[in-house]
Amino acid sequence: MGTAVIIGAGEGLSASLARKLHSRGHTLILAARNVEKLSPLQKETNATIIACDAANEKDMEQVFLEADKLGDPLDIAIYNPSARVRGPITELDPEAVKSAVLTTSYGAFLMAQQAAKRMIPAANGSILFTGASAGVKGFSNSSTFAMGKFALRGLAQSLARELHPQGVHIGHFVIDGGIRSANRPEQTGSPDAMLDPDAIADSYLHFIDQPKSSWAWEIELRPWTEKF
Amino acid sequence: MGTAVIIGAGEGLSASLARKLHSRGHTLILAARNVEKLSPLQKETNATIIACDAANEKDMEQVFLEADKLGDPLDIAIYNPSARVRGPITELDPEAVKSAVLTTSYGAFLMAQQAAKRMIPAANGSILFTGASAGVKGFSNSSTFAMGKFALRGLAQSLARELHPQGVHIGHFVIDGGIRSANRPEQTGSPDAMLDPDAIADSYLHFIDQPKSSWAWEIELRPWTEKF
Amino acid sequence: MGTAVIIGAGEGLSASLARKLHSRGHTLILAARNVEKLSPLQKETNATIIACDAANEKDMEQVFLEADKLGDPLDIAIYNPSARVRGPITELDPEAVKSAVLTTSYGAFLMAQQAAKRMIPAANGSILFTGASAGVKGFSNSSTFAMGKFALRGLAQSLARELHPQGVHIGHFVIDGGIRSANRPEQTGSPDAMLDPDAIADSYLHFIDQPKSSWAWEIELRPWTEKF
Amino acid sequence: MGTAVIIGAGEGLSASLARKLHSRGHTLILAARNVEKLSPLQKETNATIIACDAANEKDMEQVFLEADKLGDPLDIAIYNPSARVRGPITELDPEAVKSAVLTTSYGAFLMAQQAAKRMIPAANGSILFTGASAGVKGFSNSSTFAMGKFALRGLAQSLARELHPQGVHIGHFVIDGGIRSANRPEQTGSPDAMLDPDAIADSYLHFIDQPKSSWAWEIELRPWTEKF
Repeated sequence: MGTAVIIGAGEGLSASLARKLHSRGHTLILAARNVEKLSPLQKETNATIIACDAANEKDMEQVFLEADKLGDPLDIAIYNPSARVRGPITELDPEAVKSAVLTTSYGAFLMAQQAAKRMIPAANGSILFTGASAGVKGFSNSSTFAMGKFALRGLAQSLARELHPQGVHIGHFVIDGGIRSANRPEQTGSPDAMLDPDAIADSYLHFIDQPKSSWAWEIELRPWTEKF
Repeated sequence: MGTAVIIGAGEGLSASLARKLHSRGHTLILAARNVEKLSPLQKETNATIIACDAANEKDMEQVFLEADKLGDPLDIAIYNPSARVRGPITELDPEAVKSAVLTTSYGAFLMAQQAAKRMIPAANGSILFTGASAGVKGFSNSSTFAMGKFALRGLAQSLARELHPQGVHIGHFVIDGGIRSANRPEQTGSPDAMLDPDAIADSYLHFIDQPKSSWAWEIELRPWTEKF
Repeated sequence: MGTAVIIGAGEGLSASLARKLHSRGHTLILAARNVEKLSPLQKETNATIIACDAANEKDMEQVFLEADKLGDPLDIAIYNPSARVRGPITELDPEAVKSAVLTTSYGAFLMAQQAAKRMIPAANGSILFTGASAGVKGFSNSSTFAMGKFALRGLAQSLARELHPQGVHIGHFVIDGGIRSANRPEQTGSPDAMLDPDAIADSYLHFIDQPKSSWAWEIELRPWTEKF
Repeated sequence: MGTAVIIGAGEGLSASLARKLHSRGHTLILAARNVEKLSPLQKETNATIIACDAANEKDMEQVFLEADKLGDPLDIAIYNPSARVRGPITELDPEAVKSAVLTTSYGAFLMAQQAAKRMIPAANGSILFTGASAGVKGFSNSSTFAMGKFALRGLAQSLARELHPQGVHIGHFVIDGGIRSANRPEQTGSPDAMLDPDAIADSYLHFIDQPKSSWAWEIELRPWTEKF
């Protein structure tokens, strides 16, 4: 089997992805800014855990150098991190805006570059990006998140055109709605009003499993009751 | 299990869908303008075959009245028909344009109306539309197909907003590229340069299987080498 | 100067367009289903008035045969008609849906075909379509309008690709919001919450005036306070 | 009259804008990384010239502090800078990518923040961004430019939703094609195959002149012969 790298592994979606990939036999690298909370998942999936600032070039390179040591060829790389700075444009701190945009989009570029270097020679692999509805619609008081998630989508679309003909599959997932977690459980009385991370993960796996003759590059996922 | 209606069942994609749904235990109704060529598929899938002009209100109603007789509740309806009239706008025959637009889009409305009447009370079911890249990009010398496929996409998007909160799932599939068939086999030297109908059908099944908390309404599918 | 044909001339927007084009020296043809109410505008702009069912091929041809008699070459054609059938898909009358879709989109095709035949030989002219936000977003309980206005947008985009290189300019105007009229006056307390038809008309004229080196094919117009 | 700030004033488009705004009576501030080449334009338009790294917070603030000294209220701010790093993703220098993305998008945020602080209290003014087709379509070997221009478009769309209801008008111009200049003159034999900067500037002025009841936030401009 292959090796899968998940950047931003502290999210609930990442735990679902890690479990499903582990059960398929993948070797896992989980990278996150804070790795303390990852130890239960590490035990469950036998993953290698690495601390990583996703927007830091050296940190990202280090993650993939670790992946190289694991033996199985890298065939999956998933990018989850994002940062939001909310508020009227006049009240935003420029340094915080810059940092948030870089985390949401530039880190994804850094991951994609490392992954592409390894996947192109094999003409095999999937590079997947976790986007948001903010990447297709710029909301009021959310200019920072709009910049980051639009940039992420532009990166993904550009790479789909560039890398699909080289055998590397790109996926951009527009997640529209809250994701269930221990901190954000399902509300009584409104079943399925929040996204189940296992259900999202199944769409990531569907992309990974698509034969070359029928590749998607993007899908929007939202609860059945979510307005859009 | 449930009943699945496929309109425009003469396409290669429909044969893949019919086989996969049959193997899952679905009861099938296959409707097409010309039903002669459907008899091998009928034998293989034990489907009920009905002749139907998709843009004819009475024909469409008849298809669903037949479905009602089969016992299993209707939970899948798939619309494939489309008609193209190519050429410079100045050279097109207005009657042919009207007929093509109605086949590509109005027939889909007729099917969706019949399906919605049956699925909404059960808060269950999937209504799926086979679109084309012409539904998201209007090409030169293709004004008729652009009208029909844009209209189909507008219908699907409107119904996603209307029916998702009622428990009925909408899917719009933007097929971009040629589909392999006996008449259009894979070219030597360019593997996977045409869409495999079985691969497309797997994406239809992925939509059908998505839990309510994580529904997509659209996906674009194209061969890895297709320019877009 | 040239001749301008306006289809669907009973709208307030059309009166603004007619006055502005008349004051620039254009000869006008105003076509509408009901022409009785057009006589004040006819007197003001010295227009030729023709009764026309926009989705009827012969009626549309007749409008342009009248235009041919006026001497000045046709260089502007504007399509306004649309028809709405609102409600849940299960309650819509299929015949009314068909008629509405044809009025909103097929009539535009008929006009564009007549106009293109006259403009392409001169490599000159503007064909403009009045769209709606329903053409870029399919709303709930509005499947019919979504089909018609998406189809209109697909037609416009296809023709922009086809006719721009032949010197004929296409414009698609996404009008998002209510248009002021004698029947729908500006509300006290919310200035400019409805579109002023003179302001919209100025954007149509801007398209008409764009030099060939810098052509747009689409613009969205909405009041400053309109949510989108 | 008012004061207009143009960031990235070394472009040919900026010279057209500066001349047109000067002739309307606007007081001008022209900011660019290299200001030497601006002196002819400075003399012609009586502009104040400031050296500015657009992605530097302090530099941007300084530009607007200069504008405050000029007496006329700021009512126009235009952002032109962009930076491209072309090539396969595997060959790009991460530091160059980061710098290019920040110049193309983060600098626009910095300008918009300064402008919004001054325009919101007056409920008046236009903030205009020069985009590119790379902002709506991510091209192969152009991931960096896609990130920057998508982010710029996300910023503009978010600000349209946020600032239009506060009386500040946003414009995003999707320039698709080469712009004529002394260095890139019109080719013999293909008239109007490159955008005339004066024609583009007229569309900027059209946005500035739109009444509040009929505001656009985006327009695509391309030569009549440009493929899209």
